[in-house]
Amino acid sequence: MKIAILGFGIVGSGTYEVLAKSGSSVEVKRILDLRNIPEIADKLTTDINDILNDDEIEMVVETMGGEKYPYEYVTAAMKAGKNVVSSNKMLVAMHYKELIELAKENGVAFRFTAAAGGTIPWLSNTIRRTASEKILKIQAIINGTTNFILDSMQTRGADFAEVLAEAQNLGYAERDPSSDIDGEDIKFKCSISSSCAFGVHVPHEEVKVFPLRYMKKSDMEYASKMGMTIKYMTFAAQKENGKCVAYVEPSFISAASLEASVPLNYNMVSFFGEFTGRLSFYGQGAGKYPTGASVAADIIELTKTKEFGAACSGEGEVDNSAELHRYYVRTSKKIECVAAVAETYEANGEDFCAVTRELSVAEMHAIAEKVKAEDASAFFAGIHAEV
Amino acid sequence: MKIAILGFGIVGSGTYEVLAKSGSSVEVKRILDLRNIPEIADKLTTDINDILNDDEIEMVVETMGGEKYPYEYVTAAMKAGKNVVSSNKMLVAMHYKELIELAKENGVAFRFTAAAGGTIPWLSNTIRRTASEKILKIQAIINGTTNFILDSMQTRGADFAEVLAEAQNLGYAERDPSSDIDGEDIKFKCSISSSCAFGVHVPHEEVKVFPLRYMKKSDMEYASKMGMTIKYMTFAAQKENGKCVAYVEPSFISAASLEASVPLNYNMVSFFGEFTGRLSFYGQGAGKYPTGASVAADIIELTKTKEFGAACSGEGEVDNSAELHRYYVRTSKKIECVAAVAETYEANGEDFCAVTRELSVAEMHAIAEKVKAEDASAFFAGIHAEV
Repeated sequence: MKIAILGFGIVGSGTYEVLAKSGSSVEVKRILDLRNIPEIADKLTTDINDILNDDEIEMVVETMGGEKYPYEYVTAAMKAGKNVVSSNKMLVAMHYKELIELAKENGVAFRFTAAAGGTIPWLSNTIRRTASEKILKIQAIINGTTNFILDSMQTRGADFAEVLAEAQNLGYAERDPSSDIDGEDIKFKCSISSSCAFGVHVPHEEVKVFPLRYMKKSDMEYASKMGMTIKYMTFAAQKENGKCVAYVEPSFISAASLEASVPLNYNMVSFFGEFTGRLSFYGQGAGKYPTGASVAADIIELTKTKEFGAACSGEGEVDNSAELHRYYVRTSKKIECVAAVAETYEANGEDFCAVTRELSVAEMHAIAEKVKAEDASAFFAGIHAEV
Repeated sequence: MKIAILGFGIVGSGTYEVLAKSGSSVEVKRILDLRNIPEIADKLTTDINDILNDDEIEMVVETMGGEKYPYEYVTAAMKAGKNVVSSNKMLVAMHYKELIELAKENGVAFRFTAAAGGTIPWLSNTIRRTASEKILKIQAIINGTTNFILDSMQTRGADFAEVLAEAQNLGYAERDPSSDIDGEDIKFKCSISSSCAFGVHVPHEEVKVFPLRYMKKSDMEYASKMGMTIKYMTFAAQKENGKCVAYVEPSFISAASLEASVPLNYNMVSFFGEFTGRLSFYGQGAGKYPTGASVAADIIELTKTKEFGAACSGEGEVDNSAELHRYYVRTSKKIECVAAVAETYEANGEDFCAVTRELSVAEMHAIAEKVKAEDASAFFAGIHAEV
């Protein structure tokens, strides 16, 4: 089968190399990239029409990232009757329902396993299990950069800014790390994962997020004293009538839990099925060859069958008003609306740390809005004793 | 699609219930069982020919366990042109190559995901990844009973016999626990897993096993002092020319490792792929609904495609002569052949504990043969600092 790759960056070139070494029958006929890349000069084009109008090309693999051009090219490819594989979380999260429906209308397949979890066949397995049972909930460490930071903070007692700089030097974190440490990356992955698991489009805009950005060494020390550690996690759960829970937050979890042992930049993603119980997947959530391997697996699978695609029966609605747990809140001064829900609220070094009574995620976010007006760098973390 | 289930025991009935609740189009037309089971009386038969001769039945699901009848029925079903799904590790391990070839000759599919790892889609994902890369090695906790025992020994400081009795009372261990604590169960699963990963039949008879049966509380305490814990694990690796490493042994692993955090009767199975790196799967390795969910997933997948079956290019050969690591050996008296390879060998309570220099698995087994002649209850564990 002949295919085209859009974008010869880290993931695109990784996919290309894995395919070349796999011995599969897949032939990369065209590669769209604006740069001049000598080793693939015979395949390069800057014009998407060279691909769309080539009837030999049966599949388009989008590894560009971003939204505007990928959206334009992917929809055009589907309309031209070509199967599509994408590793682009932003594209998939933003246009989930539309792209699944467009693929169906055009009788083509649409795969995006690498868009959440990198090399981990998380989405493909989640989709498959929905054929025989209801997926009740999801819990995941699904951002390698922030896990690297937290792992270093835990094992070495380092401070946030220090390990962030180190992660940037190692290439684990971007120069502008906002997408990772403000939870944008995880929010997109939560949207995609819960959409696949629950069979409706869970809008990324509705996923509530507490950032990791404001975390300090003292927060990790506080967690340690409770026999816990902090991981940056996402949780989602299926409720009645297309409603679901979906949020991202720094999370206090037991130091004895499996998630607490996730090292470096690894991911661990789990679903809880009606019959399966807990099923977890662990591996590299990013990286040239790991992610390339996942994209290549989607491509090779599509040469054999178009079955096992994600289904989307409609728009989901995020409702975090009944999702209850305690919170840890650290502020630079005592703030009344925190004190009102706190079981303890004590000085800790130059800060004040509260552990609240059980609050819904929605309630805590409402309180946090007020807190931020008085203390922009306040830190919020859910206490997840159940993990 | 109409199917038949052979054996309405724990897995068979679990599969039946999951299928019934899944809303899939699969209809269980016949169930073979020798017992009178009122709730499925209209489907029951004791005669395999009622199934083999029924052209409406396109798939046979074998959940009987054991070897003789399953082998007879499964081969007959394949010859009758029916697809086969089996959850039977003994059948699959003993007749791996033959059954894969027989299925191919008859143009039918053969699936056995639940035979190793229970609900975990371990085999299916391993097979799939082999289409694009070489699987280099496997490491796994793949027996829930012994993990339950070891987890209890670690967290509560309990002794082996005590937790074994408890596991029996909870139904996690059989009345005769030999298959679990002597490693027979893991041996079959190692054979199947490594066969799927390496593409050749890895004979279960050649997988070397050190039993867990002789472990004591003092062994766990010894590991703890080293910052480690003990898990009952299997390891396999692909070498050149169809050769592979394959063995099962009590294993000292770092207390900070992911495997060390595997609680209760859970399994954690991992492969290391050429491009993927480490990919791990975690879930219930047994149980009515978890295993039923896995069998049901195989069945439903087969209604959509016959692709993605395991391949077997020939007979593999186990060669553990170059697989090196240190060992922990506990004997009731000092034994010369242990002393000859020991870095330390000291009294520990009423016993003597040695940590050896690096030995190959083959060397250690040769030494163990001599040790057993002098001390039948000597305990051997690999020291796997790399886990």
